[in-house]
Amino acid sequence: MRVEIWSDINCPWCYIGKARFERALERFPHREAVQVVHRSFELDPRAPQEARPVVPLIAAKYGIGLEQAEAAEQRIADNAEAEGLAYLRSGRDAANSFDMHRLLHFAAEHGRQTELLDALYRANFAEERSAFAPGRLAELAVGAGLEGAEAARVLADPDAYAEAVREDEATASAMGATGVPFFVLDRRLGVSGAQPTDTFTAALEQAWDSRTVVPLVAVGGDSGRDSSADSGADPGTDSGANPGEVCGPDGCAVPRH
Amino acid sequence: MRVEIWSDINCPWCYIGKARFERALERFPHREAVQVVHRSFELDPRAPQEARPVVPLIAAKYGIGLEQAEAAEQRIADNAEAEGLAYLRSGRDAANSFDMHRLLHFAAEHGRQTELLDALYRANFAEERSAFAPGRLAELAVGAGLEGAEAARVLADPDAYAEAVREDEATASAMGATGVPFFVLDRRLGVSGAQPTDTFTAALEQAWDSRTVVPLVAVGGDSGRDSSADSGADPGTDSGANPGEVCGPDGCAVPRH
Repeated sequence: MRVEIWSDINCPWCYIGKARFERALERFPHREAVQVVHRSFELDPRAPQEARPVVPLIAAKYGIGLEQAEAAEQRIADNAEAEGLAYLRSGRDAANSFDMHRLLHFAAEHGRQTELLDALYRANFAEERSAFAPGRLAELAVGAGLEGAEAARVLADPDAYAEAVREDEATASAMGATGVPFFVLDRRLGVSGAQPTDTFTAALEQAWDSRTVVPLVAVGGDSGRDSSADSGADPGTDSGANPGEVCGPDGCAVPRH
Repeated sequence: MRVEIWSDINCPWCYIGKARFERALERFPHREAVQVVHRSFELDPRAPQEARPVVPLIAAKYGIGLEQAEAAEQRIADNAEAEGLAYLRSGRDAANSFDMHRLLHFAAEHGRQTELLDALYRANFAEERSAFAPGRLAELAVGAGLEGAEAARVLADPDAYAEAVREDEATASAMGATGVPFFVLDRRLGVSGAQPTDTFTAALEQAWDSRTVVPLVAVGGDSGRDSSADSGADPGTDSGANPGEVCGPDGCAVPRH
């Protein structure tokens, strides 16, 4: 089973939701059969590259006072800590996350996506030093086990993995996601938001129990088989409905008599 | 979209079917959005480690003469060559493929699965030297871009990635596969056998066109939200049907007032 999680590194509920989902996964009896994949989603593709303090951003966005914005941030911090997550209670900042998403796709190709994702969340939500400070992403990449020079090349080339990020975003949109975190199980079942752990448990169970035999495409009569098959060599496939040649436990499609 | 292909390295129709599928994929307008994953399937989990010539194996399995078995092998070679694939017309051998599958899972973790899979097929179907010769797998791993010492450790430990191989096989069985190659598109549509390229094109189109909004799990009334939410901070989620906290284009779940 595969669980795809659309998130943005700037999204605190993604940080929290990931922890809640992981708690459900730890308890799930079939966890060894579950593969988790990060998918990119930018909450604000037009955000500037320069990091800005988060509390004034919240205040401006909702037209509320700094004090209320600060209270909202503290409530999120409470939720994070309730999940056992470290959370920087003051001084958190935000900026454009496109490069982070590009780097996560690069990391996926090298089997280091999970490590990098955790490092990015930690850097953004739990560490004093800004995740958006110059050179920080390259450092985090190395810390996650990626080759430094290669990671620097990816970061320096704005086109590298850009298409992969945009494709993830288009897919999220096609599947009905309007916000993140957005969890999709085997492309058949979705969970929107940082739901409680029990909800993720229910989703994992529902997706697991509804795994079914996949319908086969209807195949026409002409298999395009090489005409040498006419020379007495019966293709020996198992079923008239399926002219594709297969190898099964009893051998491959070969003459049978 | 994700296409999972269950195959065995000992399966000539998998080698041919992969080429036919890849031809369809090359022509598919949305090919950039298609991710291809190899899945393990052992045709004969009890096959010995020592390689044996393939023509006598075919003859014994079907109770046919060596000459007929040889003709069957030549017909497969004709099909392979028709797809532009090199095929060793004499002297091909076969043995247990479990270690190959374990190594393919290790390669996947390092972003080198495609390279290793192609190298394994080439070694088994197109090269004079046996793919099962001592030390050959370690060499092929390095050729595919994997780190030699790490690959050697995986090969020396029979438990390494063994569970991943068995899990793939259990999944194939659960989805109704009885032979390989077995292609599954987004866990929603299957193609069994080395079908003609046009069939793969039709399957890709059908799966693409039927991508849908995923249904969301029904979420109960109790979100398990931290009780600090009662202190005047409205969670501000978008919908009563979804108590999970989200971040959307308009910001995260924070007090709105």
